[in-house]
Amino acid sequence: MMIEAVGLDADDTLWENERFFRLTESGFAGLLADHGDPDQISRRLHDVERRNLSRYGFGIKGFTLSMVQTAIELTDGRVPGSVIGQILDLGYEMLSHPLHLLDGVPEALGMLEGRRLILITKGDLMDQERKVAASGLAGRFEAIEIVADKTPAAYARVLTRHDIAPERFLMAGNSVKSDILPVLELGGRAALIPHELTWQVERDDDPDHPQFHRLGSISDLPGLIERIEARG
Amino acid sequence: MMIEAVGLDADDTLWENERFFRLTESGFAGLLADHGDPDQISRRLHDVERRNLSRYGFGIKGFTLSMVQTAIELTDGRVPGSVIGQILDLGYEMLSHPLHLLDGVPEALGMLEGRRLILITKGDLMDQERKVAASGLAGRFEAIEIVADKTPAAYARVLTRHDIAPERFLMAGNSVKSDILPVLELGGRAALIPHELTWQVERDDDPDHPQFHRLGSISDLPGLIERIEARG
Repeated sequence: MMIEAVGLDADDTLWENERFFRLTESGFAGLLADHGDPDQISRRLHDVERRNLSRYGFGIKGFTLSMVQTAIELTDGRVPGSVIGQILDLGYEMLSHPLHLLDGVPEALGMLEGRRLILITKGDLMDQERKVAASGLAGRFEAIEIVADKTPAAYARVLTRHDIAPERFLMAGNSVKSDILPVLELGGRAALIPHELTWQVERDDDPDHPQFHRLGSISDLPGLIERIEARG
Repeated sequence: MMIEAVGLDADDTLWENERFFRLTESGFAGLLADHGDPDQISRRLHDVERRNLSRYGFGIKGFTLSMVQTAIELTDGRVPGSVIGQILDLGYEMLSHPLHLLDGVPEALGMLEGRRLILITKGDLMDQERKVAASGLAGRFEAIEIVADKTPAAYARVLTRHDIAPERFLMAGNSVKSDILPVLELGGRAALIPHELTWQVERDDDPDHPQFHRLGSISDLPGLIERIEARG
């Protein structure tokens, strides 16, 4: 079976992302240290984020708004305006953090040269475009697709737009929920590239599915594709 | 000259948008009535929005963050957390307001049936997708393109992706800055459909350009296209 196109996730697959959220969370907990220990504060923040997902979607602006809301809820509205200002600054810093490519990424993309590669990511349009530009990798991809959420329908639209048959498509990323399950549902193949920090919302058990592959790192991706194609 | 495809802006071209921002602004000024009259407060908010555009981009989440920041600046950090909570609620309401199509829109799109129509809008991905779905108009469009900003480069990418020659493309919308100038720059045609409320940042003088057309309303669009094509 020839693989016609390879989809690649971006955050925590090509470059660090969750690490910056964790750093920001710990700064946030520090600002509210009088109102709970860091773990309690993180749990409250995660609850608020989860409640807000359907309204704010993914990305740093929604995360910043969720931090502000958590600070208000944790303090029963007594949080000083100056602390809210510091929370806005934390969000601002995230929007301008430098980009750190993950180990092995340029080499793996180099080995995939000549293949149709599509970057498929979700979150703030503007922030994702900034990161793609800063990565210097844009030229490696036939297309950059930024979607509101990685649902089966969103993947189906991307595949239709680029005229790719699902059974000849392989998606690689660090999230079972976003990169693996929806693609398997469409009849495609999916390769999990684990990242030590993966947001809870994105985690799920490995599926028991013949089209699912678990890799050690992105360096294993070119070899996986060759083995799939060699099997015919 | 045949028009191969027509681009349509969404906010304040197909449906009301600025009206909801103005209503929210007046609610915001009401919350801060002790710190200035509504005009002063709006001016401060617009300044903050403008400063934040390069970081937050367009959309309701960035606007909400700018309201929070303005409240902090206006009160020298003394704004109570409870008022910040009310500001978050204002933003939340905007994200769920019902959709109001503008007069004449379904009729005009009906008259354009059979033509390639592409909706081209900017702002929050998730919020724009919600509005497109709520409008019931998605089926009228060959494609929905949500871009971070309406630059000449962004239009060029859309035209390339859909294989449309710029000189056979006509863009229609209410913003000289976003819908008209970048398309003229690419060699396309552009039709201004004025809306009584247009955000200051989007306004500019009518260009003196042979490919520019000013319409009275969207109802004039089908006739304009016929006249352009009849001229050969």
